[in-house]
Amino acid sequence: MDELRVDLGERSYPILIGPGLIDEPAHFSGRVPARAAIVTSERIAPLYLARLRSTLARAGSDSIDIVLPDGESAKTWQTLDQVHTALLRARGDRRTTLIALGGGVIGDLTGFAAATYQRGVPFIQVPTTLLAQVDSSVGGKTAINHALGKNMIGAFYQPSLVLADTGTLASLPEREYRSGLAEVIKYGFIRDAGFLDWLEANLDALLRRDPGVLSHAIRRSCEIKAEIVAKDERETGMRAWLNLGHTFGHAIEAGLGYGEWLHGEAVAAGMVLAAELSARLSHLRDADVARVRGLIARAGLPVAPPALGAARYLELMRIDKKAEAGAIRYVLLSRLGEAFVAPVPDRTVTELLQSACAA
Amino acid sequence: MDELRVDLGERSYPILIGPGLIDEPAHFSGRVPARAAIVTSERIAPLYLARLRSTLARAGSDSIDIVLPDGESAKTWQTLDQVHTALLRARGDRRTTLIALGGGVIGDLTGFAAATYQRGVPFIQVPTTLLAQVDSSVGGKTAINHALGKNMIGAFYQPSLVLADTGTLASLPEREYRSGLAEVIKYGFIRDAGFLDWLEANLDALLRRDPGVLSHAIRRSCEIKAEIVAKDERETGMRAWLNLGHTFGHAIEAGLGYGEWLHGEAVAAGMVLAAELSARLSHLRDADVARVRGLIARAGLPVAPPALGAARYLELMRIDKKAEAGAIRYVLLSRLGEAFVAPVPDRTVTELLQSACAA
Repeated sequence: MDELRVDLGERSYPILIGPGLIDEPAHFSGRVPARAAIVTSERIAPLYLARLRSTLARAGSDSIDIVLPDGESAKTWQTLDQVHTALLRARGDRRTTLIALGGGVIGDLTGFAAATYQRGVPFIQVPTTLLAQVDSSVGGKTAINHALGKNMIGAFYQPSLVLADTGTLASLPEREYRSGLAEVIKYGFIRDAGFLDWLEANLDALLRRDPGVLSHAIRRSCEIKAEIVAKDERETGMRAWLNLGHTFGHAIEAGLGYGEWLHGEAVAAGMVLAAELSARLSHLRDADVARVRGLIARAGLPVAPPALGAARYLELMRIDKKAEAGAIRYVLLSRLGEAFVAPVPDRTVTELLQSACAA
Repeated sequence: MDELRVDLGERSYPILIGPGLIDEPAHFSGRVPARAAIVTSERIAPLYLARLRSTLARAGSDSIDIVLPDGESAKTWQTLDQVHTALLRARGDRRTTLIALGGGVIGDLTGFAAATYQRGVPFIQVPTTLLAQVDSSVGGKTAINHALGKNMIGAFYQPSLVLADTGTLASLPEREYRSGLAEVIKYGFIRDAGFLDWLEANLDALLRRDPGVLSHAIRRSCEIKAEIVAKDERETGMRAWLNLGHTFGHAIEAGLGYGEWLHGEAVAAGMVLAAELSARLSHLRDADVARVRGLIARAGLPVAPPALGAARYLELMRIDKKAEAGAIRYVLLSRLGEAFVAPVPDRTVTELLQSACAA
């Protein structure tokens, strides 16, 4: 088992990574009070809910279950209200701990439910997808969607523990697994050229889900994320780097309708666009862009964006949370392994999108 | 003008108190960005909205208005969503500052909207009722109601400024003004026997809204609240003292249907119950209870609770946020000027309620 730490002063917390962790009561003892609530989805419940409930019982905690519909469409007020209602009916109090068992949707929604139930109760992330283990479960971003934009309503609210059981990834459908790899690859692009080299060398093993290689990829991803979050918890600076490919990616997800492309797929195509934009602005060389595109393609992820039309992309991107007074701010690469955030003239982005969508 | 400070480290903020403050751009300059949103109610908008908008314009800020229905029934997801939707339509970004212009409902709702819009934007409280000026605008408690309980969904989220324009109290209906006095009187009971003496000596002037006396009452109330909040921001200890009378009071509000009794009226009757309970437990003397009851009666506030039945009171109080594992925790008085929190056997509370409701 690996143990990392997200260093945020009094809000610091550990990330535990390894196989079989959800079966080990020791990780929960002392961290979960007598009353807990496991929040999970209809897809995950048959796989892991009974196991986690039994582990909690052995750790001395009596838990209720809250099973929600599956998928991005569950990130709404209605589902959030369902969690709050279940907690109130079960007489959940301010010490009741919420445990998010599932992927990014469950983690985001449960975190926001914990942030807002009786003005805040503790919560624990037990991510069961690669995407959630390397990205969304770490760092305290919680949210639901609004009809006018994804993740527009939420809070920065840190978990008290992230427990990433790598054994749960065995059951992950191939497409979801590859979607998670997009975020792993992202860490190489924005922060660690050495990790990028390692990913290029080990991608085949990673695609085979080789336990040792996968474990290293998750740990290094979490390390980079923890480092960035510790430096900039509320995204006033460097944390925005983590959104490489996400401004384009969110536009793809919204433009096609959520769920059409998976998040990681949209981010993958968005990262290629961000690399191409960085090259147009003379930060990257063509060879760098070719490496970005090549690695993403080898991971079985899309490199070409859907043809929504440049005007529609810009319209969708203007409501991005990084935008300021309607000006879109892009995460770009100054070189492979380092990112920055800047505005870019609409004309340049339009030319990029026209060329990319035509390709 | 008086200026106090709520001392919360990097989340510290000033409270400005005085007549005519909403007409003075200097208080907003440098605190409000180019884009702001004033959130107010249908009742307050005709009185102060144009004035505040003009002051903001002179301070260099272009503001949109969000006018909500009046009253406690507005503290819902639906109204919150209305605020978020208006902000998204106006392309509000992470720097957009929300300004709550109104009473406690507007302040609680706007604060929670600010806490959750794009994971948190700045907000300013401009309270226009006595209740909001002495209590709800200070301390960062934000919330909406849930069908199963008042203020059950919310966040601790501090404003960047509280601007209490005492001139706005002139327009306050008499019943609302007296409701606000309940919270003023509360500060004497829980924290300052000297202030209690002063209130007894000056109550007639306070009821006449004598500017000097009113100003002192507001300042001393805010000082006590700021001191307690600075010591215990998230209500793990002493802050619960501020809920004297509120456990009974919330049960009265919920039991009668919100809006039937005003919050301060319910708290007033609740404080009499809390004092009587403290006497039953031998903490207060009968003469102390008589002072509590006498001051509340002189303020024109109810001293007898509505006859909901003891069992119904207990049922409603069990979902109070101070409850732990279903055990109600009561704010009691150890003497006039000092509070504490403790459980009390249901039988003792039942006897109290049966006797009080029969009276």
